[in-house]
Amino acid sequence: MSHPHFNEARVRTSFNNQPFMHTIQAVITKVEPGIVEIEMPVWDGVRQQHGFTHGGVVGSLADSACGFAALSITAPDAGVLTTEFKCNFLAPSVGEKLIARGSIIKAGRTLTLTEARIFALAEGRERLCAHMTATIMTVQGRAGIAD
Amino acid sequence: MSHPHFNEARVRTSFNNQPFMHTIQAVITKVEPGIVEIEMPVWDGVRQQHGFTHGGVVGSLADSACGFAALSITAPDAGVLTTEFKCNFLAPSVGEKLIARGSIIKAGRTLTLTEARIFALAEGRERLCAHMTATIMTVQGRAGIAD
Amino acid sequence: MSHPHFNEARVRTSFNNQPFMHTIQAVITKVEPGIVEIEMPVWDGVRQQHGFTHGGVVGSLADSACGFAALSITAPDAGVLTTEFKCNFLAPSVGEKLIARGSIIKAGRTLTLTEARIFALAEGRERLCAHMTATIMTVQGRAGIAD
Amino acid sequence: MSHPHFNEARVRTSFNNQPFMHTIQAVITKVEPGIVEIEMPVWDGVRQQHGFTHGGVVGSLADSACGFAALSITAPDAGVLTTEFKCNFLAPSVGEKLIARGSIIKAGRTLTLTEARIFALAEGRERLCAHMTATIMTVQGRAGIAD
Repeated sequence: MSHPHFNEARVRTSFNNQPFMHTIQAVITKVEPGIVEIEMPVWDGVRQQHGFTHGGVVGSLADSACGFAALSITAPDAGVLTTEFKCNFLAPSVGEKLIARGSIIKAGRTLTLTEARIFALAEGRERLCAHMTATIMTVQGRAGIAD
Repeated sequence: MSHPHFNEARVRTSFNNQPFMHTIQAVITKVEPGIVEIEMPVWDGVRQQHGFTHGGVVGSLADSACGFAALSITAPDAGVLTTEFKCNFLAPSVGEKLIARGSIIKAGRTLTLTEARIFALAEGRERLCAHMTATIMTVQGRAGIAD
Repeated sequence: MSHPHFNEARVRTSFNNQPFMHTIQAVITKVEPGIVEIEMPVWDGVRQQHGFTHGGVVGSLADSACGFAALSITAPDAGVLTTEFKCNFLAPSVGEKLIARGSIIKAGRTLTLTEARIFALAEGRERLCAHMTATIMTVQGRAGIAD
Repeated sequence: MSHPHFNEARVRTSFNNQPFMHTIQAVITKVEPGIVEIEMPVWDGVRQQHGFTHGGVVGSLADSACGFAALSITAPDAGVLTTEFKCNFLAPSVGEKLIARGSIIKAGRTLTLTEARIFALAEGRERLCAHMTATIMTVQGRAGIAD
């Protein structure tokens, strides 16, 4: 699949400009038109009280995967903002690392619906541990919102 | 309002056992039966590419406020897990600090519906910047899930 | 509370122009600025297989309560559309009638976040049986979208 | 795909026991393990004020598709209930009929996450007009909840 606005470098640069992704040690591992993959090692600083990855961290990875999936096909003069997301938690987020795979359900002029599936990798096996749908708004001409 | 299972110390201890809350510099500032307040300074490590607080961080504060609001009235032999949350973003999360206020919409035997409102404090004024509803599951007798 | 765009007659007329509300025998019982109440008797044609009101009907009442709460303070030259809703089901929707109470969490220029609480009335007592949050989009100049 | 609990007749009978599906003239058109398809002609009694199908009707079709997708692989001594759904509206629900396709994202012991895509059929072409995720709870031994 190709897309006239697809710009891998733009997505990678924008991702790397998110301090919070560095804070949680997340990296972007795949960028295709409408598809983004983000990985994070499960390290001590992202856990909650039971030792699982905090649901908010899982949501953060999923939100980024969704937002950058949308950004990957956004016109160069526009930016993106998340207006809402819902995340369902399906299994404890344990193991060595989490992988969030974001994609587009339907791209619209103003609102784009995206989804992400978050997998926990443990002992070489992936397990689906969460699912998100997120609405991403395309924003033009708003100060400070680009990429 | 009082509640037979209310245990402030339990909530505060459990919150402090969440490494991720320390990672993002969040603290718990209020614990009442069914109500919890969490605050976080807006510091560089929680931002996204536009300089706002990352939506996932906003969601993390809200999720914790919801979960601990539920835990505050949970029977001592049970724990809690988030099964899903939805977060709507209403305004950019900018300013000096964020305040997440969690409360209970309806407590159930197995599932409790909670909500959180997240306010951004800037120049002495609070502005509602996000809203979450979260379903919290009461879990008994599952290894590793307590508090 | 008053609002410069509040127009009760507009809301009641628009509600009455919804054939589906007639199909399920719903009526609008209160219209205030940013607040709408809708009631429906629990009759056989709205039930699911267990005898409860179908979740989709509960969602329909809640969606209408949310949308008309937003419409009640919308500029006269604009209309409204629901872009998303989430509904949590808290108790079986049984009894003599359902009452959906919609209100506004935050009104925005383009997107307004609303909520509705749905109560089941049985033997003179109201019981909260569902909760919705809905995003309502203000639409201007789109053919066919007014009121 | 097969499933030890799959029982097509059970799903069709349960669907036909939903008076509300008759009220809106919906029929079940496909039942496979974990997959259900429901169709409804777009008739006058399901419209809202702009002439589109009411969002609550779209949600009703999606909720039924999700619930019956889950029921199709549920143990014979258990029933299902929807605990929450979120529906995103992507395009006006206009045309000759709507088709809701429900499937399972992850089946769990207590909670099963499902999704549905709702298509509007107009002049021989299908258009994706809504997307739902729904949490379906498996219920055992609760009076009145079977099938």
